[in-house]
Amino acid sequence: MNIVEFFQQSAGKWFSQRTSHHLAFKQSESGKSDIVIEMLPSDNPEVVKLCEQYEIDPTLALCGARVTWNGTMEWDEEKHTGSTVLVPIADPENPKEGKLLREMGYAEKAPVAGRYKMGDDEALTLITEYESMYSEERLWFASPNLRLRNSILKRFGGFSMATFCSEIRMGGTQPQAEAASSTTNT
Amino acid sequence: MNIVEFFQQSAGKWFSQRTSHHLAFKQSESGKSDIVIEMLPSDNPEVVKLCEQYEIDPTLALCGARVTWNGTMEWDEEKHTGSTVLVPIADPENPKEGKLLREMGYAEKAPVAGRYKMGDDEALTLITEYESMYSEERLWFASPNLRLRNSILKRFGGFSMATFCSEIRMGGTQPQAEAASSTTNT
Repeated sequence: MNIVEFFQQSAGKWFSQRTSHHLAFKQSESGKSDIVIEMLPSDNPEVVKLCEQYEIDPTLALCGARVTWNGTMEWDEEKHTGSTVLVPIADPENPKEGKLLREMGYAEKAPVAGRYKMGDDEALTLITEYESMYSEERLWFASPNLRLRNSILKRFGGFSMATFCSEIRMGGTQPQAEAASSTTNT
Repeated sequence: MNIVEFFQQSAGKWFSQRTSHHLAFKQSESGKSDIVIEMLPSDNPEVVKLCEQYEIDPTLALCGARVTWNGTMEWDEEKHTGSTVLVPIADPENPKEGKLLREMGYAEKAPVAGRYKMGDDEALTLITEYESMYSEERLWFASPNLRLRNSILKRFGGFSMATFCSEIRMGGTQPQAEAASSTTNT
């Protein structure tokens, strides 16, 4: 599976259960979220705009995806809603790794490109570093309709949080067109 | 890292935070546990006895480990305490994979050998299958003092539970003798 196929496999609506282990407090916090992931063609205006923000040639975009979430976390009971666009840009010498461009999240002050790496075990690893923060996330499919995610967060050099998400495809199956296209590419 | 080094790195006392996502119910359950892992030499009587139960030549045991846990889960508030012995037996043609013998757990009626696999990414995968159940667990070290575990459970062919544990070494550092021995072997 390459990164575009991973994104295609991720397209759809997901119910996500999230648990964060706050390592210093020895406390865990859980949350739930609905997530919608839509594929965007590489010439989509949002994809092109994001490349330009990062000063990267838009023709290098492998694809794009819009991720929208709507959820709650246990401790604050506030609605966590948001949306971002992701664009992978492969390294010239190694298509299994590259940059992952992302629209700015609520916690960031400046655009920061993450790194992606597709493993031989079909897991996708995303690494994001900014200022005093380092995050490493691993995403993989237990089945086409069950996606799992694990992330570990370091602040100021120390591990502060480990998070786990299990994500179940809503409706149970992938939309026909997506499923057909990802089968073709596998 | 080979499997013996992984066990050595695991030796010590750990505080474990556990969260289970019950996929069908869309509910999560958390628990906490103290875990003690002790290395046993391959000629330890418990290791030899376990090999004999599985009708395996005890000289093939790479090492042994005793795992003892003492914890609680949220939904039942009962104490979950127990102890088991683990013994890895490498495949003759491939030392990165093999059988993992285990003393019977409370849920099992007969001894069932699992499979282990050390990945190139230094993660250990354990696969256990019995009757209508299939479990796949991935363990890895974010640092020498932070061990993470992920498991996915299938019953009757369907995914029923995804579990995540973050385990912090108690006291913050590995005992001197263990640390020295694992450094030597790395």
